[in-house]
Amino acid sequence: VAKRPVITLTTDFGLHDHFVGTLKGVILGIAPDAAIVDICHAVPSFDILDGALTIAAAYKYFPNGTVHIVVVDPGVGSLRRPIVGSTGAHRFVAPDNGVLSAVYDAEPAVQVRHITAESYFLQPVSRTFHARDIFAPVAAHLAAGVDGDAVGPEITDFVRLDTARPTASGENTWRGTVLKVDRFGNLITNIAAQNIPRLFQASPPAFKLVIANREIDHLRFSYSEAAPGEAFAIVGSMGYLEIAVNQASAGEILGVGKGAEFTLSLKPPRKIIRL
Amino acid sequence: VAKRPVITLTTDFGLHDHFVGTLKGVILGIAPDAAIVDICHAVPSFDILDGALTIAAAYKYFPNGTVHIVVVDPGVGSLRRPIVGSTGAHRFVAPDNGVLSAVYDAEPAVQVRHITAESYFLQPVSRTFHARDIFAPVAAHLAAGVDGDAVGPEITDFVRLDTARPTASGENTWRGTVLKVDRFGNLITNIAAQNIPRLFQASPPAFKLVIANREIDHLRFSYSEAAPGEAFAIVGSMGYLEIAVNQASAGEILGVGKGAEFTLSLKPPRKIIRL
Amino acid sequence: VAKRPVITLTTDFGLHDHFVGTLKGVILGIAPDAAIVDICHAVPSFDILDGALTIAAAYKYFPNGTVHIVVVDPGVGSLRRPIVGSTGAHRFVAPDNGVLSAVYDAEPAVQVRHITAESYFLQPVSRTFHARDIFAPVAAHLAAGVDGDAVGPEITDFVRLDTARPTASGENTWRGTVLKVDRFGNLITNIAAQNIPRLFQASPPAFKLVIANREIDHLRFSYSEAAPGEAFAIVGSMGYLEIAVNQASAGEILGVGKGAEFTLSLKPPRKIIRL
Repeated sequence: VAKRPVITLTTDFGLHDHFVGTLKGVILGIAPDAAIVDICHAVPSFDILDGALTIAAAYKYFPNGTVHIVVVDPGVGSLRRPIVGSTGAHRFVAPDNGVLSAVYDAEPAVQVRHITAESYFLQPVSRTFHARDIFAPVAAHLAAGVDGDAVGPEITDFVRLDTARPTASGENTWRGTVLKVDRFGNLITNIAAQNIPRLFQASPPAFKLVIANREIDHLRFSYSEAAPGEAFAIVGSMGYLEIAVNQASAGEILGVGKGAEFTLSLKPPRKIIRL
Repeated sequence: VAKRPVITLTTDFGLHDHFVGTLKGVILGIAPDAAIVDICHAVPSFDILDGALTIAAAYKYFPNGTVHIVVVDPGVGSLRRPIVGSTGAHRFVAPDNGVLSAVYDAEPAVQVRHITAESYFLQPVSRTFHARDIFAPVAAHLAAGVDGDAVGPEITDFVRLDTARPTASGENTWRGTVLKVDRFGNLITNIAAQNIPRLFQASPPAFKLVIANREIDHLRFSYSEAAPGEAFAIVGSMGYLEIAVNQASAGEILGVGKGAEFTLSLKPPRKIIRL
Repeated sequence: VAKRPVITLTTDFGLHDHFVGTLKGVILGIAPDAAIVDICHAVPSFDILDGALTIAAAYKYFPNGTVHIVVVDPGVGSLRRPIVGSTGAHRFVAPDNGVLSAVYDAEPAVQVRHITAESYFLQPVSRTFHARDIFAPVAAHLAAGVDGDAVGPEITDFVRLDTARPTASGENTWRGTVLKVDRFGNLITNIAAQNIPRLFQASPPAFKLVIANREIDHLRFSYSEAAPGEAFAIVGSMGYLEIAVNQASAGEILGVGKGAEFTLSLKPPRKIIRL
């Protein structure tokens, strides 16, 4: 391949051990020109859904041809399959445990293959570190030009998890969940444009969001618009509705975290009575 | 450009989310050969002055031609301007909120431009993540060879913050502040060579530094010279006077942190009386 | 050199300061094509043995020709020597304080040189940050093609620390130590295949490991084989015996951490009596 290949890493390995560095060594031995980019290694240990949301938030910003390694893998060494998902523009190398579910949601035409071509593995293959022995070397071979069809047969029974979509609990009412709390304490909810399109319009309707016995009814368009201490809703950079406080942590101020539930109601438009 | 471009990142984004990885994806889409280097993503949230000091400590060690992205941006989405500061050797892409103040201090000839050329932005531009939509793509275009003049008009009314210099409180006395506590617990003060040149000479005069009711009067030239548990002063690698303890945390031992104040007095030279 | 050089970094610098970024700036000024890989910057401050184990766990996974910078350096600025260790395939640039001891254990033919060629240093050389002023520039010059012999004379009296091997306390009994606790809470012990070869066979003998008044006698081959809450032993990816709990932290469940001691006994095979 003429162009410099890009390989990304999304894992729950943290940065306190040699794990991530070791993966990069394996990759550079196979694809010496690769640009290797860490997307995130702070996925909570074994939290497959969090890993799924993290890669889904970032992969579209990478150039076509990028190979993404996504490893949150509590079943390492068991019979769960290693897979490659391909969208044409992007490829994803991961365990078949649902960690690509949010990619599947975003990419209906994804093609998934079971990795069976052991010639691309680092031998001997351990039963405790498949990121090093299977995922990294397969991704590096793909990035270096190996044909994607060569890794193994296509499968259609890959594991797909429910990615925590909001549920309608009435005509204009939904129950939602906080997917994660970001570095700044913003609460990322599971409400996206496809769930409640009206809320993401340029002129959204009035609404009421109740979380932790607190009522939020302001939608802001930038963090700095809000008054100090005011909790407000905002469409965040991941495309989800967020609950935020200007220059402070909404998570701390509201006392809620990942997994917190809330209700959201759109108010019917006020009748305009011309007198 | 023939040479491999270098782009650095200094932010308050932390490493627990996908933010930094996403920036790198955007950069590699525009400048595929770039070497991207993290200077620091642990600037405390919204702490503009800390970001200013961090980039100022590091940029000079990068090769000429490097483009530095510096984003601590509580006003993202507001009217604060995006800017490029250029010293000839280095360029800095940042919000105009003072985060380049310590660079301005070090580079009197810096030229600053207001970024107005929206053709270099990632569209659509959000109001919550300008690092992704404005700063990263503009920096990548600059690194890839776009002429710096093309980003927008020169301005002279850019924001410049007071970078916490020490104040003289007597003929040989100063009040200083702890700018930050580093990984090892060393207290980085705001006393630099230009403030008290005598103190940074090969044979400095006697002095007394009082912090947290403790008196420090030893200047050491390496950490390992000091006795265990001894708090001492040392000229650190950032060029500032530091307060340190050999193989222990001065911050913990003295019970002080960022923002702590102290007084420093140079003792008049002892009179030598020949009898 | 035709091939893209690889330089790795293993330090106790953390990621909260500009230190690591600054090193990379220095390297790219000398070796602009280098791929720079972080192995780990979370070595506990001044913990030379931990640094030694970290680099030893990772370096073999890097391509031949890689230059590894290893800096845990409480004696920076003192008379301790800067050195380069070379195995032919890998080179290691480090202070001579024992931080390469586990590499020496693994590579009996290592050749060590005292770095004396100041022309490769970044001038002026500070007495507080030799990683920036000596180790990074020397490593970059080596990676860029400088002959290893040019850095200084060979030495044989380099510092070598005891790397915490287990001690036999009886015919089939050993006293061991927990070397570190990894991100997942697995306890990495100091028992390796060369210490007790029988335990690392495909069909290992029965054993009893006693730690924190708890008895462990199951060896698993993958984490996910174990029942929830069960503490078990496993041969981990670093080649050491580990104590683990499936999808939970063995460190927290057993209430032990780095430095904890344990005893390990191989049980004599049961006599099979045919009646």
